[in-house]
Amino acid sequence: MMIGIDLGGSNLRAAIVGEDSTLSAHCKEEVGEPRDPESIVERCAKVIERTSGGKPTSAGIGIAAMLRDFEGTVANSPHLRWRDVPFGKMLARRLPSYKIGIYNDVNAIVYGESVAGSARGSRDVLGVYIGTGIGGGLISNGHLVEGTSNCSGEIGHAKVRWDENAAPCACGSRGCVEAYAGGSNLQRRITKELSAGAKSAAIALAGGNIESVNAGHVDLAAAEGDEWALGLWTEIAPLVAVTLGNAVAVLNPQRLVLGGGVLSRCPTLYTLITTTLMVAGNAPSLEALTIVEAELGDDAGIVGSAHLAGRGVSIVRP
Amino acid sequence: MMIGIDLGGSNLRAAIVGEDSTLSAHCKEEVGEPRDPESIVERCAKVIERTSGGKPTSAGIGIAAMLRDFEGTVANSPHLRWRDVPFGKMLARRLPSYKIGIYNDVNAIVYGESVAGSARGSRDVLGVYIGTGIGGGLISNGHLVEGTSNCSGEIGHAKVRWDENAAPCACGSRGCVEAYAGGSNLQRRITKELSAGAKSAAIALAGGNIESVNAGHVDLAAAEGDEWALGLWTEIAPLVAVTLGNAVAVLNPQRLVLGGGVLSRCPTLYTLITTTLMVAGNAPSLEALTIVEAELGDDAGIVGSAHLAGRGVSIVRP
Repeated sequence: MMIGIDLGGSNLRAAIVGEDSTLSAHCKEEVGEPRDPESIVERCAKVIERTSGGKPTSAGIGIAAMLRDFEGTVANSPHLRWRDVPFGKMLARRLPSYKIGIYNDVNAIVYGESVAGSARGSRDVLGVYIGTGIGGGLISNGHLVEGTSNCSGEIGHAKVRWDENAAPCACGSRGCVEAYAGGSNLQRRITKELSAGAKSAAIALAGGNIESVNAGHVDLAAAEGDEWALGLWTEIAPLVAVTLGNAVAVLNPQRLVLGGGVLSRCPTLYTLITTTLMVAGNAPSLEALTIVEAELGDDAGIVGSAHLAGRGVSIVRP
Repeated sequence: MMIGIDLGGSNLRAAIVGEDSTLSAHCKEEVGEPRDPESIVERCAKVIERTSGGKPTSAGIGIAAMLRDFEGTVANSPHLRWRDVPFGKMLARRLPSYKIGIYNDVNAIVYGESVAGSARGSRDVLGVYIGTGIGGGLISNGHLVEGTSNCSGEIGHAKVRWDENAAPCACGSRGCVEAYAGGSNLQRRITKELSAGAKSAAIALAGGNIESVNAGHVDLAAAEGDEWALGLWTEIAPLVAVTLGNAVAVLNPQRLVLGGGVLSRCPTLYTLITTTLMVAGNAPSLEALTIVEAELGDDAGIVGSAHLAGRGVSIVRP
C-alpha cells in the first residue's frame, strides 16, 4: 500500500495509490486556518493514519514549497506562509513507523505523469507547468532529478530578459520568464493594460467588465484575431518557447509535458508556444521530442508522491 | 583494466586508466588522413589491442561528435567530416570480446572531472566548455545524463537572442550563445571589428598585426581598461552568464565546472561571467553551487570515457 498526498495552498488531498496507479480512499479537505507547521503536521498525520487504517506504510507528500534538502525542510512556501520549517522531520517523528517522503509539488506531479500519465513509458521527461507561477520537474533515465539541494526544476526563474527594463519577479530578481508568463503577473498586466485604455474584444467576452478579463478571455480574443490580444500573446509565446527550447537542448528529453491553469485555459497561447518551439529549438534535440499535455490533472501529485515514497526516494529519517 | 580514448579532430589519444584514475601506457597520434570511418575504426581497434596487450577489457571512446543513440552512431562530426556513421557498431564488431562504449567528448570530459577532477565528490554536476564551440555535460545523482537520444548537454545552442538581428550559428539556427561566445565566432568578430577600424590596445599586444589578435589579447586589453575590449566582453559575459544561470536554475547542481580554450586563455572574461552569474542567477540554486575551473585538461576525456565504459554505461552490443 502506498499513500500519496498533495498539500497545496488551498487543499489537502490524499489517496491510497495502487501499483497500477489507481486511486482509492480519496479524501480532500480545505487547508484553511490555522496553517502553522504544528497544525498541518498533525492534520497530515491524521489523514495518513486514517487512510492507511493505522497500518504503517509509505506516504509521499507533494508540497507547494521550495525545499532545501532531502529531509523535507521547507525553505519557503508563500502558500503556507512558512519559512525554514523542518516539515519532513516533524512528520517523520510524529509517524516513526511510516516511510515519509517530502517532495516539491511540481516534481511529484511530473513524476506522476511519467509513471501513469502523458509521459508514461518515457525515461527522460521535462514537465513544465504554467499556473499562478511557473514550475518544472525533470526525470532522467527514469529517476527524478532532485538536484543537490532538492530545488531542481526552477525553470520559472530562467531569465528571458536582462536589460534595465526587465520585469521584476516575485523571487526578487528580474527578467524571469515567470515575470512575463506566470498567471499572477499575466493577470496583473492584462488588467493594467485594459484599464489604461487598450481596446480588446476580450472585454466583451468577459461580459464587459475589465476587472473580469482573465487569460482565457484574452486567448479567445486572440483566436478571433484581436490585435491587442495577439500582440500580447506573440510577445509572451517566444519567451516561453525559448525557455522550453533551451532546457530541451540541455536535457534532451523524450517527452515535454505541458500543464497548469494558464496553458489549459489558453489553447491559442499553447499552440503559439509549441509552434515557436518546434521552429526555433535545437533541431537534434527536437527530433527526439514529443510534446504532450498533462493528463492526470489534480491526481498527478498524489500519484507521483505515492510512487516516489513507495520506491524509497528521499525517505526522511525520524 | 580500463582503457580510455579521446578521439578529436586533431589527435587520437589513449591510455590505461586505473581505478584511482592514474594514467599509464599513454599514447598520442595525429588523426591526419585518411579519416574515413573504416580507417579510424581500424586505428582505434589497433590502439585498443596494443594498449590492452590483447587482453579483452573495457574501452570507452569520447568522440568529438553529435551522437544519435546508445550504440555509438555518429549523427554528425564536422571534425571528422562524418555523417550517419555507425561507429560504435563497427568498432564493437571489430573487437567483439571488448566492452566498447562511445560517448560525446564533452560528456566524457565532464564525467572525468566528476570522477577525478575539480568536481570530485559531487554527485550533481554541470560542466560547460567554451572552446571553438560551446558544449556541456550533466551528472545527476552520480550518473551521466545522456538524454533520450544521447545528445544532452547542447547548451551551446541555448538561445540568448531571438530578434531579427540574432547572429547566425553553425547549427543552422540563430541567436545561440555559441554564435556569440564560441571561439570561432568570437575570433571572426574580433578580426572583423578591428579590420573595420576599431581602436584597441589588443592590436599592440598582438605585435601590431590585426590578423594575429585573438581572444587572449582582447582579454589582456580588457584587463587594462581598453574601451573596445571591455565593450565586447561586457556584451558577451552576460549572454554566457544567463545561459549558465538558467541551466543552474533547472538542474540545481553542486558544482559548475568551467573549461575550454577560450575560458582558460581569458581570465578577465571568466571573472566577468562568474561575477555576473552570481549576481543575476536564481538565489536558491546559487546557494548550493560552487563554480570551479576544469582541472584535468587533455586527460579528462580519457579518464571519463574509461570510467564510463568500465562502469558499463551504454556498452555497444557487437
